[in-house]
Amino acid sequence: MITLLTDFGTADYFVPAVKGVILSINPQTQLIDLTHDIPAQDIAAGAFTLGACYRNFPAGTIHLAVVDPAVGSARRAIVVEAGEYLFVGPDNGLFSYVYRQESRVRVFQIERDDLFRQPVSATFHGRDVFAPIAAHLSKGLSPENVGKEITDFVRLEIPGLSVNESGLQITGSVIHIDHFGNCITNLTARELPPDQSDQSAIKLRFAGQQITQIGSHFAQAVKQSSLFAYLGSAGYWEIALWCDSAAEKFAVSRGAKVILERELPNED
Amino acid sequence: MITLLTDFGTADYFVPAVKGVILSINPQTQLIDLTHDIPAQDIAAGAFTLGACYRNFPAGTIHLAVVDPAVGSARRAIVVEAGEYLFVGPDNGLFSYVYRQESRVRVFQIERDDLFRQPVSATFHGRDVFAPIAAHLSKGLSPENVGKEITDFVRLEIPGLSVNESGLQITGSVIHIDHFGNCITNLTARELPPDQSDQSAIKLRFAGQQITQIGSHFAQAVKQSSLFAYLGSAGYWEIALWCDSAAEKFAVSRGAKVILERELPNED
Amino acid sequence: MITLLTDFGTADYFVPAVKGVILSINPQTQLIDLTHDIPAQDIAAGAFTLGACYRNFPAGTIHLAVVDPAVGSARRAIVVEAGEYLFVGPDNGLFSYVYRQESRVRVFQIERDDLFRQPVSATFHGRDVFAPIAAHLSKGLSPENVGKEITDFVRLEIPGLSVNESGLQITGSVIHIDHFGNCITNLTARELPPDQSDQSAIKLRFAGQQITQIGSHFAQAVKQSSLFAYLGSAGYWEIALWCDSAAEKFAVSRGAKVILERELPNED
Repeated sequence: MITLLTDFGTADYFVPAVKGVILSINPQTQLIDLTHDIPAQDIAAGAFTLGACYRNFPAGTIHLAVVDPAVGSARRAIVVEAGEYLFVGPDNGLFSYVYRQESRVRVFQIERDDLFRQPVSATFHGRDVFAPIAAHLSKGLSPENVGKEITDFVRLEIPGLSVNESGLQITGSVIHIDHFGNCITNLTARELPPDQSDQSAIKLRFAGQQITQIGSHFAQAVKQSSLFAYLGSAGYWEIALWCDSAAEKFAVSRGAKVILERELPNED
Repeated sequence: MITLLTDFGTADYFVPAVKGVILSINPQTQLIDLTHDIPAQDIAAGAFTLGACYRNFPAGTIHLAVVDPAVGSARRAIVVEAGEYLFVGPDNGLFSYVYRQESRVRVFQIERDDLFRQPVSATFHGRDVFAPIAAHLSKGLSPENVGKEITDFVRLEIPGLSVNESGLQITGSVIHIDHFGNCITNLTARELPPDQSDQSAIKLRFAGQQITQIGSHFAQAVKQSSLFAYLGSAGYWEIALWCDSAAEKFAVSRGAKVILERELPNED
Repeated sequence: MITLLTDFGTADYFVPAVKGVILSINPQTQLIDLTHDIPAQDIAAGAFTLGACYRNFPAGTIHLAVVDPAVGSARRAIVVEAGEYLFVGPDNGLFSYVYRQESRVRVFQIERDDLFRQPVSATFHGRDVFAPIAAHLSKGLSPENVGKEITDFVRLEIPGLSVNESGLQITGSVIHIDHFGNCITNLTARELPPDQSDQSAIKLRFAGQQITQIGSHFAQAVKQSSLFAYLGSAGYWEIALWCDSAAEKFAVSRGAKVILERELPNED
């Protein structure tokens, strides 16, 4: 089984060319689209999306991911062996969430020109480099045999949390904006367990607003024009508007801060 | 074989997460996308689209459908056994066309928490509830074994036709607008057989216009800026503009009326 | 294996209806989407996109293509046997790149009403005519047995190159605009080998501009607001803007001219 994640869109010949090359090498492959609508050249968005679903697939799945603004330049092509999966793509940080989520990670630089589709187009390594390598991996090629292991692979800096001196204020940030305009933050259930999210005990500030609606699912968002916070399905707190784009309406982009404040326990 | 119909869009991790969960339980499943571009939370549009194509699939196909604005609330999750197919999704009317089109319908409330993906996200039952149930059905789980049969399942009111006293005027309405902006009405070949649609004998009024072009296919629409009516491939009369959105241009939405008048047979 | 290329979009029941009909006839078929986002009724765009990727698929693949503005009229339905592939669709020029790229081409008019899905909708031959024929071909039906061979099949005029008297100036044109707005011309490596593309020896004029950036891949486009020319992955020179639509910004459409001038070799 090979999955595909790209920023190619679905309107041109790019995605089917990749699929055709894979199927020409291994007609038995089961191909599954993750998405081809990653915003053009947005490595961070591709990394997040891949990180949010690769583990839903059966052990042994090969994830082929191509968001590759530097295609044709000297950036390296890699195969990653991480947890129970293999990954194939450019060495530009696209696998950063995989590196963070898996304890066992090995990265190999692709050097098997003999397996590439010839001639290699300088603008389409998805078809000419990554597709044949993924297909050969699906036929049993070992990652060790694609090239030398490297350790200086590229990692995106995924923003962390900062806690103030009292320990009562945690500052996080938006790590992804999905296509509904929902803002996914890096706060998790560890910082704010959903069953402790009643608003007398905590304050959540975002985009100049104090969020007054915190819940577990959208149907609870009674005031539909106000921001609503909920623990999302990727394991992160998300901030959204009912049927509208929170990111657009509040002019929020990746990196925007979210501040969680706990009240001092009332000793009355 | 499992088909998927959702309003998730194809840009995020939602659809592949559902697919990965199914394939992790049953790697032999053949997955077919119906569409993921149902307008967000538009149950009626999902119901129509599902109703228009589910019967094209082989007997035994499992149709997984998720348009679920009340996800996380108390709305029920169901398995429907209807005709030669199984359906899995929320009990919110999404299967209304199935209920109307099939004579043999049984509905079971999903109660098998033991089969759910844990922990169940309050916002993503597609991945955590419906996907595993569909996968287990594909492996032979019987609908009777997912939970108790119910009879008070939710049906959308699908608008009917009204006929005036003389029997010469039938009022129908728009039940769906497709992504080209074509307006699908609930008039069928029964009310207006395509071979009796010459305009001397009938009048068709819609959106304040008298429709002067009635035919069987688009290439007959000679006046391209005028409305054109034809018997569509879903079995309903549709009203459209050549290369333009009739719904937008005439500000028509679901529920808009269409009036069919037959002339009294001329006794001269 | 059957691939699908259409202008149906992915929001309605059209694509799944086609897939369901195929799978009902041959449940073993592996279905691969080329694209369903060909601009509505744009036969030339469909022809280019099909031509750019059909050969990436294994020999024996059946390519089903439907961009069919004249559906329901007297235009013919055909099966094409070309090179190692079969093609099914309307006879309107959609297979023009196939005809040009393959030396061995036979075209058969579809006359097997007995295999059609009944009743045949006048607006949806994709489901009722082409899908069943493709499915039966995948089960071994011979092209000779779908109908009589024809030789007057429709070919789009694909623009050629013109060379001036001195032989130093070649005029080509834009044959396709992809969904990024990149302009694909009919100049190939034969007219301008990428290793001879240094700008002291040649001039490339397009849309009233002299192109000052010519290279092999995007990462070389240093001036990001200027046009950039590179040999694209379909084998044609393309003219693009970094992260922007060249077609939109320079108001270019299919047919726009591109002029390549070589300098006279300097005899100093």
